[in-house]
Amino acid sequence: MKATLIYGAGDVRVETVPDPKLREPTDAIVRVLRACICGSDLWPYGSKPPQDHGDRIGHEFLGVVEDLGAEVTGLKPGDVVVAPFVWADNTCDFCREGLQTSCRHGGQWGSNDVDGGQGEAVRVPQASGTLVKLPVGEDSALLPSLLSLSDVFPTGHHCAVTAGVDARTTVTVIGDGAVGLSAVLAAKRLGAERIVLMGRHTARTDLGRAFGATDVVAERGDEGIERVRELTGGDGTHTVLECVGTKPAIETAFGVVRDGGTVSRVGVPQYPEVPADFGVFFRNITLTGGVAPARAYIEELLPDILDGRIEPGKVFDRTVGLDDVPDGYRAMADRDALKVLIRP
Amino acid sequence: MKATLIYGAGDVRVETVPDPKLREPTDAIVRVLRACICGSDLWPYGSKPPQDHGDRIGHEFLGVVEDLGAEVTGLKPGDVVVAPFVWADNTCDFCREGLQTSCRHGGQWGSNDVDGGQGEAVRVPQASGTLVKLPVGEDSALLPSLLSLSDVFPTGHHCAVTAGVDARTTVTVIGDGAVGLSAVLAAKRLGAERIVLMGRHTARTDLGRAFGATDVVAERGDEGIERVRELTGGDGTHTVLECVGTKPAIETAFGVVRDGGTVSRVGVPQYPEVPADFGVFFRNITLTGGVAPARAYIEELLPDILDGRIEPGKVFDRTVGLDDVPDGYRAMADRDALKVLIRP
Repeated sequence: MKATLIYGAGDVRVETVPDPKLREPTDAIVRVLRACICGSDLWPYGSKPPQDHGDRIGHEFLGVVEDLGAEVTGLKPGDVVVAPFVWADNTCDFCREGLQTSCRHGGQWGSNDVDGGQGEAVRVPQASGTLVKLPVGEDSALLPSLLSLSDVFPTGHHCAVTAGVDARTTVTVIGDGAVGLSAVLAAKRLGAERIVLMGRHTARTDLGRAFGATDVVAERGDEGIERVRELTGGDGTHTVLECVGTKPAIETAFGVVRDGGTVSRVGVPQYPEVPADFGVFFRNITLTGGVAPARAYIEELLPDILDGRIEPGKVFDRTVGLDDVPDGYRAMADRDALKVLIRP
Repeated sequence: MKATLIYGAGDVRVETVPDPKLREPTDAIVRVLRACICGSDLWPYGSKPPQDHGDRIGHEFLGVVEDLGAEVTGLKPGDVVVAPFVWADNTCDFCREGLQTSCRHGGQWGSNDVDGGQGEAVRVPQASGTLVKLPVGEDSALLPSLLSLSDVFPTGHHCAVTAGVDARTTVTVIGDGAVGLSAVLAAKRLGAERIVLMGRHTARTDLGRAFGATDVVAERGDEGIERVRELTGGDGTHTVLECVGTKPAIETAFGVVRDGGTVSRVGVPQYPEVPADFGVFFRNITLTGGVAPARAYIEELLPDILDGRIEPGKVFDRTVGLDDVPDGYRAMADRDALKVLIRP
């Protein structure tokens, strides 16, 4: 089959790799209907040292069950399924606590001989726990939004949930990438009435407004902090959803959070430490968030997509075939595309 | 009257200062029955640059109402009252949210012409909001435990509450000072069944066991982390209560917290930043806590003291008169005393 490999910064290739086969009785083989490129794929795409062998890449996909190991329950060939971006048994103590990203028998796509998501098919370990059956056909118009359940929408949701967003909280979302916009949608869905989106790309912030942002702040740094404070009577917002991962973004988060408030971060941190000095301490600021246990949220979010109440798939603004995945990476890295959908 | 002043590191003096008088109609004058020395007083005692004038010091006291401004309600002369370690109107939006430390009209003892607590009397601003009436006489045997409501016990309680301690959470408390021991007592009161206390002073950890600690770990650093992990099946505890404030202590906290868990800190931070790298992110660790809004907790904690169900005042292991306050500082700095009670 064909699959995507990364050889180093700026060097993504689509090559022929061995077809996946069942290895463990808990495995499934899934033929990929839709995959996509994640903002977090852009970190290695931007900085990975060159190497002579490619590493499989991609961790968001949905597809059709083709083959099942003897111990897999709850699935049958032909089922349309979505996979969260980390595989997990969904039965261990961490999974039962809703932290499938720390599953005792889980792992990540594209490493340790597990396929990446940006290919024609994937061997899925712990298939009973990992995969969620979707009550749709292979040609459903809902596939983009359902694919978003793999990572980007639950990541925005995790950010809002861990921040404690509800109808009583004001919200600042930092970042107008696909995760930031998903966080806006998630905050709105959780009842937030005041959502300030910090971003400067009008096409993206327009989608943010459609998703529920009530205010857009294009300024950055101290100027951006001042602007959010102006909008909130000088106080900042109860919750801040940091969806970028850079040091300036997390510093802005601490600048716009209200005393007693919470900063939640889901942008993969490109910094080793965060401010935690006496000022942060005296203001009782909480820092939470982390890698989203998407699996924990899929059943909760799915009905809203099936009913058409939300359309998180609107973050996809470009579609490529598998052969054009390298172009998709370039488009996202150049900020030409917000998020690229792949139809293998 | 006599009051305590600090002139620099190691230089605390008791001197005659002007008697406090009502200035605002919202003021009260309180004659101090009991005060004490806080672990946080030891930071300036250890490092304050010398100066030619003394600064008033002390922020924990209970006493008797002597005089009241015209606008003070709910109090009368002769009432025995306790003051939280930050004064507040208890009516603004932050106070209503339980964050009296960020009160819009509040402030700190011993600055801006407000008396410190380590003296014979105190002018109390925003007296209606700040003071809590205690249903005891001036000679009550409960005074030490009631004094602990001013700071040390609510601080331990705040640490446990913000960490989310309950019957289902395992707990590590870092530090066997008065705050750490108070955090043990608070965690036990909130239902925690497994409480690991990290501390190496046997007299103190013995009190920690009496307060509810189930395990004591004397080791520090990597060795201490390993020991706590051994005690918890390799995983660490759901909650970690960091009651010291040093960089090694907060680093230990991140080392002993379970994936998905919470580190809460109430030790005044002597570090500018905390670890927040990909490892912390992937493990979904939350950092919370901060300066405790003691006022928010006094009514909740008071009945347990009045009924004798808890005795947080056991952290006081030495009592001095006002003239001997400098000895009290020395004893605490030398770790000769755990926490020093002052009877002016």
